[in-house]
Amino acid sequence: MYYPEPIAKLIDAFTRLPGIGPKTAARLAFHVLKMNEDDVIDFAKALVSVKRNLHYCSVCCNITDTDPCRICQDKSRDPSVICVVQDSKDLVAMERTKEFDGYYHVLQGAISPMEGIGPDDIKLKELLMRLSDERVKELILATNPNIEGEATAMYISRLVKPFGIFVSRIAHGLPVGGDLEYADEVTLSKALEGRRQLN
Amino acid sequence: MYYPEPIAKLIDAFTRLPGIGPKTAARLAFHVLKMNEDDVIDFAKALVSVKRNLHYCSVCCNITDTDPCRICQDKSRDPSVICVVQDSKDLVAMERTKEFDGYYHVLQGAISPMEGIGPDDIKLKELLMRLSDERVKELILATNPNIEGEATAMYISRLVKPFGIFVSRIAHGLPVGGDLEYADEVTLSKALEGRRQLN
Repeated sequence: MYYPEPIAKLIDAFTRLPGIGPKTAARLAFHVLKMNEDDVIDFAKALVSVKRNLHYCSVCCNITDTDPCRICQDKSRDPSVICVVQDSKDLVAMERTKEFDGYYHVLQGAISPMEGIGPDDIKLKELLMRLSDERVKELILATNPNIEGEATAMYISRLVKPFGIFVSRIAHGLPVGGDLEYADEVTLSKALEGRRQLN
Repeated sequence: MYYPEPIAKLIDAFTRLPGIGPKTAARLAFHVLKMNEDDVIDFAKALVSVKRNLHYCSVCCNITDTDPCRICQDKSRDPSVICVVQDSKDLVAMERTKEFDGYYHVLQGAISPMEGIGPDDIKLKELLMRLSDERVKELILATNPNIEGEATAMYISRLVKPFGIFVSRIAHGLPVGGDLEYADEVTLSKALEGRRQLN
């Protein structure tokens, strides 16, 4: 072993994070060595705090440090729409648009038979329970536009049918700022299929 | 703020590391959330331990958790050669070649007037003190092949002149596996300049 043990351990810890190889890990570990001790202690505390102080919101299953989470507590939102997303990062992306003022439901995953994730492994029961609230009129399915996300959206739309709630799926098409030339066939055909009248 | 506070703090801590932007930081923070609690605690401990248990070796100025460091303690090495490198990562790179069995001296930096780093800001005094040991016959300057590294090597070679010690500089040239076509002019001219007789 070339590195002294404390730094080797830290390099090892960094290497376990996704997308960080041994060289980047070494660079990060040496950066930590040069950091202010207080900052390093804050970093360590932040790591442990994330594990200890966060849990799922009992309403929407988003990750939160309060219960219910801040969004579910917000009475100014529209209770008639629930936007269903796969994870908390998707919720944050949605919030960034500032276009949606309903509530959310975070599935914490998507149905994926390949990875052995079935309907019982994601927060579907919790979603169904929320639908008994008569104020809910629409469910917007904003799962990812890939196989797992589509399958999950399809599954939910069938599951929800008996409730008589309007279920919608976010649009597929060309991303804004994109280039028709480089668009893949599936996206382009979805964009054609979802065309809208202009005049 | 879209994220709950504990995760926002962790994202912030990750963002301060070099080469990690907000998106990567969010991905890493959510990965930590999914990690085993024990692993997260070990990670936090490794961070703090790096700051608390590491210091400079009193002989070679390498980062170490023992004093002197493991290399300086190793009596099987050749005391007649000292290889001077800029930092601990360079020492590790050197060790990986398994070609060098002398001792090291880690400058912990290079002279850089642009960044306000002068000869007194790197471990030069410590190097000079080691030269009073009569067993030292050669100093190999293995600072980086860039402006700061060259300037530092030049400075050291002049500084050491009165000691009558043989001072060498590692070779500049084409990297093994490289391509002449893509080599820059400076490297290529250095490679020409440093050519060696084959027959």
